[in-house]
Amino acid sequence: MSDKVNYDFRISSLGTCKVPSPKPYSTKLGDSIANYTRDDQYILRSNTIDASTVGPDYDPAWMLEIAGPREKIYFSPSHSHAAIVTCGGLCPGLNDVIRSITRTLWYFYGVERITGIRYGYRGFRPEFNLTPIELNPDIVDDIHNMGGSILGSSRGYGDEEPIVDALERMNINILFTIGGDGTLRGSQAISDEIKKRGLKIACVGVPKTIDNDIMFVQKTFGFDTAVAKAVEAVSAAHVEAKSAPDGIGLVKVMGRDSGFIAAHTTLSTSDVNICLIPEVPFVLEGEHGLLKTLEDRLDKRKHAVILVAEGAGQELLKSGKDGLDASGNKSYGDIGLYLKDTIHKFLTDKGREANIKYIDPSYIIRASPANPVDSYYCARLGANAVHAAMTGRTACLIGQWNNALVHVPIHMATFKRKQVYNEGSLWRDVLESTRQPISMID
Amino acid sequence: MSDKVNYDFRISSLGTCKVPSPKPYSTKLGDSIANYTRDDQYILRSNTIDASTVGPDYDPAWMLEIAGPREKIYFSPSHSHAAIVTCGGLCPGLNDVIRSITRTLWYFYGVERITGIRYGYRGFRPEFNLTPIELNPDIVDDIHNMGGSILGSSRGYGDEEPIVDALERMNINILFTIGGDGTLRGSQAISDEIKKRGLKIACVGVPKTIDNDIMFVQKTFGFDTAVAKAVEAVSAAHVEAKSAPDGIGLVKVMGRDSGFIAAHTTLSTSDVNICLIPEVPFVLEGEHGLLKTLEDRLDKRKHAVILVAEGAGQELLKSGKDGLDASGNKSYGDIGLYLKDTIHKFLTDKGREANIKYIDPSYIIRASPANPVDSYYCARLGANAVHAAMTGRTACLIGQWNNALVHVPIHMATFKRKQVYNEGSLWRDVLESTRQPISMID
Amino acid sequence: MSDKVNYDFRISSLGTCKVPSPKPYSTKLGDSIANYTRDDQYILRSNTIDASTVGPDYDPAWMLEIAGPREKIYFSPSHSHAAIVTCGGLCPGLNDVIRSITRTLWYFYGVERITGIRYGYRGFRPEFNLTPIELNPDIVDDIHNMGGSILGSSRGYGDEEPIVDALERMNINILFTIGGDGTLRGSQAISDEIKKRGLKIACVGVPKTIDNDIMFVQKTFGFDTAVAKAVEAVSAAHVEAKSAPDGIGLVKVMGRDSGFIAAHTTLSTSDVNICLIPEVPFVLEGEHGLLKTLEDRLDKRKHAVILVAEGAGQELLKSGKDGLDASGNKSYGDIGLYLKDTIHKFLTDKGREANIKYIDPSYIIRASPANPVDSYYCARLGANAVHAAMTGRTACLIGQWNNALVHVPIHMATFKRKQVYNEGSLWRDVLESTRQPISMID
Amino acid sequence: MSDKVNYDFRISSLGTCKVPSPKPYSTKLGDSIANYTRDDQYILRSNTIDASTVGPDYDPAWMLEIAGPREKIYFSPSHSHAAIVTCGGLCPGLNDVIRSITRTLWYFYGVERITGIRYGYRGFRPEFNLTPIELNPDIVDDIHNMGGSILGSSRGYGDEEPIVDALERMNINILFTIGGDGTLRGSQAISDEIKKRGLKIACVGVPKTIDNDIMFVQKTFGFDTAVAKAVEAVSAAHVEAKSAPDGIGLVKVMGRDSGFIAAHTTLSTSDVNICLIPEVPFVLEGEHGLLKTLEDRLDKRKHAVILVAEGAGQELLKSGKDGLDASGNKSYGDIGLYLKDTIHKFLTDKGREANIKYIDPSYIIRASPANPVDSYYCARLGANAVHAAMTGRTACLIGQWNNALVHVPIHMATFKRKQVYNEGSLWRDVLESTRQPISMID
Repeated sequence: MSDKVNYDFRISSLGTCKVPSPKPYSTKLGDSIANYTRDDQYILRSNTIDASTVGPDYDPAWMLEIAGPREKIYFSPSHSHAAIVTCGGLCPGLNDVIRSITRTLWYFYGVERITGIRYGYRGFRPEFNLTPIELNPDIVDDIHNMGGSILGSSRGYGDEEPIVDALERMNINILFTIGGDGTLRGSQAISDEIKKRGLKIACVGVPKTIDNDIMFVQKTFGFDTAVAKAVEAVSAAHVEAKSAPDGIGLVKVMGRDSGFIAAHTTLSTSDVNICLIPEVPFVLEGEHGLLKTLEDRLDKRKHAVILVAEGAGQELLKSGKDGLDASGNKSYGDIGLYLKDTIHKFLTDKGREANIKYIDPSYIIRASPANPVDSYYCARLGANAVHAAMTGRTACLIGQWNNALVHVPIHMATFKRKQVYNEGSLWRDVLESTRQPISMID
Repeated sequence: MSDKVNYDFRISSLGTCKVPSPKPYSTKLGDSIANYTRDDQYILRSNTIDASTVGPDYDPAWMLEIAGPREKIYFSPSHSHAAIVTCGGLCPGLNDVIRSITRTLWYFYGVERITGIRYGYRGFRPEFNLTPIELNPDIVDDIHNMGGSILGSSRGYGDEEPIVDALERMNINILFTIGGDGTLRGSQAISDEIKKRGLKIACVGVPKTIDNDIMFVQKTFGFDTAVAKAVEAVSAAHVEAKSAPDGIGLVKVMGRDSGFIAAHTTLSTSDVNICLIPEVPFVLEGEHGLLKTLEDRLDKRKHAVILVAEGAGQELLKSGKDGLDASGNKSYGDIGLYLKDTIHKFLTDKGREANIKYIDPSYIIRASPANPVDSYYCARLGANAVHAAMTGRTACLIGQWNNALVHVPIHMATFKRKQVYNEGSLWRDVLESTRQPISMID
Repeated sequence: MSDKVNYDFRISSLGTCKVPSPKPYSTKLGDSIANYTRDDQYILRSNTIDASTVGPDYDPAWMLEIAGPREKIYFSPSHSHAAIVTCGGLCPGLNDVIRSITRTLWYFYGVERITGIRYGYRGFRPEFNLTPIELNPDIVDDIHNMGGSILGSSRGYGDEEPIVDALERMNINILFTIGGDGTLRGSQAISDEIKKRGLKIACVGVPKTIDNDIMFVQKTFGFDTAVAKAVEAVSAAHVEAKSAPDGIGLVKVMGRDSGFIAAHTTLSTSDVNICLIPEVPFVLEGEHGLLKTLEDRLDKRKHAVILVAEGAGQELLKSGKDGLDASGNKSYGDIGLYLKDTIHKFLTDKGREANIKYIDPSYIIRASPANPVDSYYCARLGANAVHAAMTGRTACLIGQWNNALVHVPIHMATFKRKQVYNEGSLWRDVLESTRQPISMID
Repeated sequence: MSDKVNYDFRISSLGTCKVPSPKPYSTKLGDSIANYTRDDQYILRSNTIDASTVGPDYDPAWMLEIAGPREKIYFSPSHSHAAIVTCGGLCPGLNDVIRSITRTLWYFYGVERITGIRYGYRGFRPEFNLTPIELNPDIVDDIHNMGGSILGSSRGYGDEEPIVDALERMNINILFTIGGDGTLRGSQAISDEIKKRGLKIACVGVPKTIDNDIMFVQKTFGFDTAVAKAVEAVSAAHVEAKSAPDGIGLVKVMGRDSGFIAAHTTLSTSDVNICLIPEVPFVLEGEHGLLKTLEDRLDKRKHAVILVAEGAGQELLKSGKDGLDASGNKSYGDIGLYLKDTIHKFLTDKGREANIKYIDPSYIIRASPANPVDSYYCARLGANAVHAAMTGRTACLIGQWNNALVHVPIHMATFKRKQVYNEGSLWRDVLESTRQPISMID
């Protein structure tokens, strides 16, 4: 089995964990006492016999290490100094994760030096003079009821050298990075730099992407909350559409490369008539094109609701396709405004009324506090991130895969983006719900 | 007293109400049985000794007739045919009012011919071929849980002649118009045309303006819901502002001529640092100008939230000031986008970071279902609109004034807009909450 | 006019206010600058010509002083020490009021010694050893998002002597009491004791009663939130009732002597079929009795929802009528459980199925955070309570009456309870909504 | 592989599916067209290498058939008549499932005879004279916004013979049963009776248990909504506890045999200090007993929140343990009231104050409409239940297992209840969150 498991996300070899865990859990089954997780517990990467269900990229024999508290840990709690940093755009649940990491460090392990880095990786740069926040259970007690991050966030500044300089300067030996694809790649680089310098610093990530597009993470935190808020926007669009003659509600949601929010929102509310995602191209003209599909819908039902992920239909936009933003993400033109204008012109050219109500709820979605399902998930992610770090794991992240909380090596999580499989059951159920054409390419 | 009361909102003189009410209420106090409202019950237009508290336009001796079921009514229920029309932009509570009117007609008076006109006044025009909806308690049973109007709405088409033609053609003798300033002026014109033709048709309005800007109506329905939704947008802006270095949250809310939503939202959440409303001019430059005020705030607290009513600062906008939209409202340029761009330029010109998150929640606010406070109010407005119409009142609307439900002659309600009094206690409490300069004009 | 105004709620005569207000408001109209409130601004106690509308207890000529910041204040801010105490049961908005008082003291007047008394009047007793909390804007920054009171609360311990001893010992010269009928009577006694001792301590109340039963306060804070939460419970009861054969949903809400929550909840949701309040007696048996009314409803519609205020039908309960609880309120038996059992027996005795779902949402209602409408109201109540106290008002409370924030002498507010007028328009609209018998006494 | 798969949930052998699906999906990968599900697609029952993680009862080699639309179906849509029945207690999402089944039958397959059976299995009994409801997309259009079941529900009447008589009498060939453990056992019996009579009627279940206690269903619908509503009750209890001296909030939630709601609620909000579930026994007395644990907590923090599942601590209750309710579930005494009284006595016996606020939010939880996460899940469950039935599956249910929607033979789902594994990671994370003793048995 060992050849199928990736061990390189450890500070040192397994045998170096010698500090007993401060918790008296059990090591045997059947005594009705909660057990430590053992180091030989794994979960399959794939749960299907037939790769066709989930796409072709999986080797089902691969395995992922199960997360949890171990009987022996690597770092001595009384000598540990942990830091937490939140990077990139906001996402519901950031404060929940900060809170859970802080509480688990403090209460479970007795680590009482916990530093919150301000405004993302920028907070490591001395030139910005951003005094860190000392964290403890009192400070984080109620933060899960607030959206955003009490540490602040920002994009960029992910170069590993000044960050590792700062870790050394601040004498930090455990770093938790909460961020998206760019942040996690940064974490990998930080871990590599740490290794190069021969330091014993663990760097564990908690993946934060409201788009839910991280490989080997079945759902990223904040996603359910985002869908719930997106449903509110779609409901408003539906109400507006139904209340006007030939009314059209157009909603743009997050989803740069992956249409999970759009697909889940569509299935959560059957109000969406056309769902557009980055994974499924569409054309405007032609028999099955968007405009004809929309017109047919208006003729039949007098109103329509379109839900578009921000990364859908990029090939239709003239410009802005090649730039990168500060986190290294592609910068996109605005498909929502483009569709609004295009549809307006199409209808008025035909002498029809164009009653289009365009809603872009992005900030309201991402600044929302986590709902209970996400709070539950964040609490467990944060706790298990601490367990991973205390046992010397590094360059890995905590995620849920096949319903188990696991350690995912960062390079596995970032080698490509998780996407809606256009031949799979999720997209098929979306098609059934909207009854839009199976393909909108002629 | 009679010279202070305006009687002209009746189809005919008071003595013509000869049909007994179908409900066995009481006519005397002290028997513990709910009473009919009498025709000599009035409420003062002003409740203060000192006109300075509420502005100079009130003659405190004027009175408003109290709404409610009368012992004798004008129309015979079995021969009545009522119609309901909703006009203009959406507002939380439209369906609640439709529902309450329908139920009161049906259950209280036994009127079983109730017609819902589609898409506003347009539904009266035969050329649009918009089949009306027959309404009854079953159809309206659950509609209060939905935003929008089940009848649909639209702007314009308020010319009185084709509407009265339609009323005659459809044999309607009671018309309920639910709409804003333009709609109500239309109702007055319809009533005048009815009178001119010698018809016995009652036309009673329920004022619908999310801006809460109707005179002699202390609060229009949907306003509390709108504030609650605006609070959510401001909370998101606050979270975004606090989570970014020098973060600025900018929210635009409804309020073309009156800043009630902005003022109430500011006091509902102390997160707003600068509140801008149409009634209080401001300049950009100068010691107390918006930009310097904002910069000082950023220097002191590292983040700021600005809440702007859509009609604020119109004098700053170059264009679009003279046009009228289809309902006869002034058309405005977008102060939100203007401020966003202006602030961005101001900060970057100074070499500062500009992290501005702009939120325009308009459709999400207006398409929301009514919250319980508004549902309560709509239920009572609708019921009392029916009482007014059944007793032959016309050219009046139902509103709440000095906490009583009253009949307001339309010409009184529309002679000017209700506004936030810039020397009054509401605006003063806003200034105390935001701690912005008492005047932002140098 | 002066004979109609009650001046006895001042520490000393008006002329003793000599300290200029720290805010540069205006004293004249027309300069577009927010004005101070003058001491000769009053509001009518009644706004109607005809006392029958609001009940017989009002002398319409009486007046109430308008609240607001004055040009001259009594206490020197730099020498002031304020205390806040919350008493009795929880109510949405307590933290909002604490927050608003703290912020107005600190930011408006520069009072920086603000003490929070723990667990109600008990916190004044040295034997409980309850260390007070020092309050400032940072501590109260986010508390309005939490239900309850950060100070804690309790009943009883309202004897004036030990409290005034404590005020002297702690050198407090301004006391804000937030509580219900019993607490306010306590405040009056405290004020009297202060006067007896010749002290210059202002004692201003903010009335807190979720039942909304304080005279000369048109609505107490938390009431709208309570109604909104009660609506959720009624909706659940309605769902349960409709989903079972002959299903009955029975909900008990607060309302010891006054049925405002029940009446408003009924009108907010038309799901209630029978509404029972303390002001309107009913019998069980007989043609118009509760049981026959219920049976008729089940026969016709197969389900029913009953909403009962906790103080309704007390004459039906065998015991517990004479005791007083710790705050001096009457102690009641449980009408909800009594009705549940009585209805169950009635139906099963008749051989019918009894599917009764009983919901008592009390704690969920009262522990809820304030909704935006209440937050708005609390913000203004707290600010104006501070203005009242800083100008030497005492033995008065802040309330809204005829839509103006006013000073109400405590003895006026507590001479009797505000109740639903059983011959007025509110109860009549409830009867129309439920279509229950106009009288349920044979 | 075939020996590990259970084929007995088909009306007839696989080869009898000869009707082409009405949808033009694809049968090959790589053409970017959504695919039919094939009959040889399975998912592992276990996803772990090490059975210790999920308990000892799994044979990881077992497999479950993946749900989805097939290329060929068994029933001819134009000759099909489907029926839907909802049984047992309410659960969020019932209407969503009814809606999804109806829409998929109608829009996907063109089945236009869909009958809703009233009030559970009772609706099949002619003696109750319960006229069924004819269902179509218009009728179900908005029902997902309402809690409960538009069909009504009830317990019992699950005897297979009269039900199959009714199916024959009504000429129904597809039956969807939505219900819990008892209902599903009934479905198995119905399927057996159908087979015995040689009929071709498919009987497919959608498992409904708010307790989430069905084997091979990773989460039952309504569970997330239930947790979210339980969180509100716990928040109220926390507020009450913190606001009173030595305040205790005690909340009882659903969970007869399985503590999933209590465990998830605890992790969703860190406000719970003691979590009690059926799977983990506890004693009252002794060093690690509940009462001492509670007292220590009060001494340290002055308040405490206890969350108890209704089935916890049954061994402590004197009576009521052996009865069965109408659905065949065990009937329990009320652990909530028992704990409330026991704790009250314990504290007052010690001379301490007992401020216990007991909240039982059951009906408010179960009557709630589904939140978006559950609506999403219900939409997919309903659609796939229809796919299963149309292809002749019977005696199976639709569930999600290892993140795939699968067919679960009813006997597998009901052979035992799914429970919280007391040595697993979920319970361990609960212990870490509450910091209660690892074992509360001495």
